[in-house]
Amino acid sequence: MPVVTAIACSNIALIKYWGDRDTDWHIPANGSISMNLDGLFTLTTAITAPQLSGDQIIIDAKPAIKSTQQRVVQFLDRFRQLFGIYHYFRVESTNNFPSGTGIASSASAFAALSLAVTTASGINLSEAELSRLARLGSGSACRSIPGGFVEWQAGHDHASSFSFSIAPPAHWPLVDCIVIVQEQTKQVSSLEGHALAVTSPLQSIRISHADQRLSDCRKSIMSRDFDLLARIIELDCHMMHAVMITSDPPLLYWQPATLAVMQSVIQWRKAGLPVCYTIDAGANIHVLCEGEYQDQITERLREIPGVIHIMHAKPGGSAYLETDN
Amino acid sequence: MPVVTAIACSNIALIKYWGDRDTDWHIPANGSISMNLDGLFTLTTAITAPQLSGDQIIIDAKPAIKSTQQRVVQFLDRFRQLFGIYHYFRVESTNNFPSGTGIASSASAFAALSLAVTTASGINLSEAELSRLARLGSGSACRSIPGGFVEWQAGHDHASSFSFSIAPPAHWPLVDCIVIVQEQTKQVSSLEGHALAVTSPLQSIRISHADQRLSDCRKSIMSRDFDLLARIIELDCHMMHAVMITSDPPLLYWQPATLAVMQSVIQWRKAGLPVCYTIDAGANIHVLCEGEYQDQITERLREIPGVIHIMHAKPGGSAYLETDN
Repeated sequence: MPVVTAIACSNIALIKYWGDRDTDWHIPANGSISMNLDGLFTLTTAITAPQLSGDQIIIDAKPAIKSTQQRVVQFLDRFRQLFGIYHYFRVESTNNFPSGTGIASSASAFAALSLAVTTASGINLSEAELSRLARLGSGSACRSIPGGFVEWQAGHDHASSFSFSIAPPAHWPLVDCIVIVQEQTKQVSSLEGHALAVTSPLQSIRISHADQRLSDCRKSIMSRDFDLLARIIELDCHMMHAVMITSDPPLLYWQPATLAVMQSVIQWRKAGLPVCYTIDAGANIHVLCEGEYQDQITERLREIPGVIHIMHAKPGGSAYLETDN
Repeated sequence: MPVVTAIACSNIALIKYWGDRDTDWHIPANGSISMNLDGLFTLTTAITAPQLSGDQIIIDAKPAIKSTQQRVVQFLDRFRQLFGIYHYFRVESTNNFPSGTGIASSASAFAALSLAVTTASGINLSEAELSRLARLGSGSACRSIPGGFVEWQAGHDHASSFSFSIAPPAHWPLVDCIVIVQEQTKQVSSLEGHALAVTSPLQSIRISHADQRLSDCRKSIMSRDFDLLARIIELDCHMMHAVMITSDPPLLYWQPATLAVMQSVIQWRKAGLPVCYTIDAGANIHVLCEGEYQDQITERLREIPGVIHIMHAKPGGSAYLETDN
């Protein structure tokens, strides 16, 4: 009875994934770049046993709600089909951070799940193969397989669409100060939002300029050029939210406190602090700074009305098995 | 010694003007539609007298600051050149609303000025001709010449770019609740902002889809279809702000209270209230509703943190001479 536990970090996109070229296979409309978030992880145990007559999905020690159950079983069916597997799984999963608040819980969840179920099935995949598999559960999960700073090559089919590390965690000691301004689950999930991207007249331009932003972002990471990173990730974030607010129906994820943090960060950077922001499909905001400024930035962030709490993450490593440690 | 006083209302754009095809002549990149704002006006007196050895520009009983003085004199020079006029003017102008806060003070100011100086010079222009002239002072001023609901036909040169009324003020008793959330002058003026529009990769798409939005907006006004109006003016507003936040440098005019009002209005409309919003190049927000809901909406708006005060305007009339009344 194989019991395998895998751990994968969440990640924050610096160049965003928003909209698919192929929804079924999660082939994205554009490539993206992210940083893994050390300490914000999903821990997933996969168990195979002959007596299982169906998949059992347990989240935080309770049977998963129906929509989650369906999504995970669909992924497991896909995995079984692709790899010729015929057994069921009991999956036990916990996040150490709140889900549905703009921190990509589905990214770490499907990354950890992919590593757990393949290992439990005796299948040993390369990082790229594992990344492809994780992508089928949630697009951004493919970025939580490799470590550090990660690029997801958009590709054009299942084989060509996967992620790889472009720099290890220690390359650049950035810190992501994750500013929680809204704790309830967002009204429109990322998965539903992706499907709306094409309804915005601006999406095609966002996509057609993505290669330039990817190139600039890669360059900023390689050369540890914070000013360039700041300019490019804020532009890319604005591009995605421009698409969101002009889709049909429009998606306005920002809340008053989101704007308060954005405006503050812009002012702080003007005054010389190496700090910038990015925002996923939610109201919470990721404020990135160089490590030595973490305390100062955190103190300032705490003073902004509407900030509920702040988590911190350094660049995180790749997905791993519990037994690896 | 001719002394002529003219009055013109400000206007709120329902379909926005943002970016010029020809900066020098203020030929806009796209057509726009606005509603004149009754009761929010500029009153301008133009005086010609042989003893004037230069233009005197008096705003609120004080000599204008240098940048305003230059802008007005530049306009007067243009006027003199176009019409073969050789005398100077003393111009005395007052607004009955605060300037530089996202209410188009330059619109009402140059509309009133155009009517005052032409009349003081013995020149009797048609509405279209007056609208063209006002456009040279400030693009949106051409929309403050005709009355009620006004369309500015983009055109391609000075002759073809002017505004006309598409419905009189009484056609649709809407109310604009102008929600002031920031009283200081904005950091980037509309005039400077227009020049940045082309630096956004999204501007070309905003322009290329403008005809559809103009057509929908026109239709919504003609048929008094509030739902269509709401959908189209919020989309158009988001389109403009999408361009602003992706221009170089980015323009992020929204403040936390702007977002608070946006989110509230969206919720109220979902709950059945005929209410929608639009935002110009500033943090303040215009909340439009059908007249009978003004009190209810105003009461709700007052409860939103960050709302400083609220002004109200019904659809306003055309620019007029004081002696007309």
